[in-house]
Amino acid sequence: MIKLGEQTYQIEKDISIITGVSLVGRKEGEGPLAGYFDFIEKDDKMGEKTFEKGERQMFLKAISCAIRKSELKKDEIDLYVGGDLMNQLVSSNYTAEELEIPFLGLYNACATMTESLIIGSTFLESGGAKNVICATGSHFSTAERQYRYPLEFGNQRQSYAQWTVTGVGASVISSERRSKIKIKKFTIGKVTDFGICDIANMGAAMAPAAMETLNAFFKDTNTSQKDYDLIATGDLGKLGSDIFKDLMQEKGYDLETNYIDCGHMIYNIDQNTLQGGSGAGCSAVVLNSYILQKLQSKEFKNVLLISTGALMSTTVNQQGDSIPGIAHLVLLEAD
Amino acid sequence: MIKLGEQTYQIEKDISIITGVSLVGRKEGEGPLAGYFDFIEKDDKMGEKTFEKGERQMFLKAISCAIRKSELKKDEIDLYVGGDLMNQLVSSNYTAEELEIPFLGLYNACATMTESLIIGSTFLESGGAKNVICATGSHFSTAERQYRYPLEFGNQRQSYAQWTVTGVGASVISSERRSKIKIKKFTIGKVTDFGICDIANMGAAMAPAAMETLNAFFKDTNTSQKDYDLIATGDLGKLGSDIFKDLMQEKGYDLETNYIDCGHMIYNIDQNTLQGGSGAGCSAVVLNSYILQKLQSKEFKNVLLISTGALMSTTVNQQGDSIPGIAHLVLLEAD
Repeated sequence: MIKLGEQTYQIEKDISIITGVSLVGRKEGEGPLAGYFDFIEKDDKMGEKTFEKGERQMFLKAISCAIRKSELKKDEIDLYVGGDLMNQLVSSNYTAEELEIPFLGLYNACATMTESLIIGSTFLESGGAKNVICATGSHFSTAERQYRYPLEFGNQRQSYAQWTVTGVGASVISSERRSKIKIKKFTIGKVTDFGICDIANMGAAMAPAAMETLNAFFKDTNTSQKDYDLIATGDLGKLGSDIFKDLMQEKGYDLETNYIDCGHMIYNIDQNTLQGGSGAGCSAVVLNSYILQKLQSKEFKNVLLISTGALMSTTVNQQGDSIPGIAHLVLLEAD
Repeated sequence: MIKLGEQTYQIEKDISIITGVSLVGRKEGEGPLAGYFDFIEKDDKMGEKTFEKGERQMFLKAISCAIRKSELKKDEIDLYVGGDLMNQLVSSNYTAEELEIPFLGLYNACATMTESLIIGSTFLESGGAKNVICATGSHFSTAERQYRYPLEFGNQRQSYAQWTVTGVGASVISSERRSKIKIKKFTIGKVTDFGICDIANMGAAMAPAAMETLNAFFKDTNTSQKDYDLIATGDLGKLGSDIFKDLMQEKGYDLETNYIDCGHMIYNIDQNTLQGGSGAGCSAVVLNSYILQKLQSKEFKNVLLISTGALMSTTVNQQGDSIPGIAHLVLLEAD
């Protein structure tokens, strides 16, 4: 691996995303990306008694399917890296237990999908591992009650709020098997805090982190937005994306033509999700559906995915602390 | 990196722990390891208004000191990997923000110290990074109120309970600079669940995970306890260590002579900590004091450190779920 500039790494091995699986809830399945998803679940509890146990079943189903589709035996998967939004990464822990694959738990809030691809790729690059499963997800009903209010409370949502995506995305990456989709470079983000204290205003908290990371990537690689077919942020939502575009404009980059936000595009405007989707599952399911399929068909030759995380803790938020953000970037190319 | 067997990796580069810093609270500073620690803090709040803000200051002080001692400039540190026990890894997030070093957040409960050394070493091995800071910690007062009861409640502690260590351990690892202490191999653990549901009984929940990981390491490397000067588990406590020794005995390994548990040794018996210490800070501070100093002096030539994590979530514990455990191992050698 070669380090470029301050935060970016160039992968030297041939590392492929060999399979990607996306599983979403009913609401996401009614949105504009419905045709791209592998599974649309009608029951948010997956037949279980609690949303938390349902989320766990979603993880298990998506990951098991990704392993099956990869045609690898379970013992050929060296490592499972990933996380979720639940405290102590509950959903991932129980999934790792069921899978019996060595596990490294990660948490960078909604930036965990790209974090898992970065750590997974580094294990492949080091030569130790050959096949790694990277997965993250989130669930509207478990996240709302942990981070904000219980659903039964029926609170009014702020106009600038977002809607946590119910869904899990799982990618099998490999240095042994080949696919058309390669991981080429990545940029590890710094924690960035612009003083947002409002737990509904995730987009504004994350936008500066996305800007810092994309700006670092452009500087480190001496490229600009013109060199990429698609630039996708994770879950800034409509408002957050607008702030992000303004911040990038100030740095001299015009993102008008080839930029999307996974959170903004995952719901239709009439689905009452306000600024759009958020959550660790958001960029994970859009990556493992829309983005991988467009790379597969070579409609996009190269894509920058910047998952964005709001590192929000209710404990310290109540002590007056603001919400720091982080964003990690991966460059994917169609070969 | 070469994979040995199912879960173990052998590092090929020359990777050194160039500095280690340990910072502990007053109670840990009254224990038998007092003479080994770099900082003993009398004020658990570090002059801040809340324990959470105090914990953050402890992270910042330990890590800043580790960087200073390493004689590296801050911009020569490629990466900060680590985590803590707070939900959303609050203490690490705010520390990363202050440090302005690219950050990957990890969570495997009290196994996070070895998890961070494993991921840090892999970044060095891949050639992308040259210097990485690995750090974890915990705080009795923030952990108790998050995981069990507020301190003001004054609950009676179970005879089999442990005491969360207040402390932070930080190691700078490098493929560029040299020290006498090398990271040679590591084993990534699987999530193991033996059905313990009692949130006070961490030792019993973690002991099977420690056994699985050490047993995997011995099998993968074709070695046994006789080949190592010291085998140290993270924070099983007295009861957990006894269970662990019994489980290892069943596998045919006798750990009577060269085995310690960091949690068991960090307090004196008259300090009223029941089974001893626990927490992500426990193995982190013992590694970065006692263990590194004994390797430095070559009293130990090789050490197996197995940090042990109880992946306990109050949310799903209240839904009847048990507490899964995980353990990751690193082999350190004095050169």
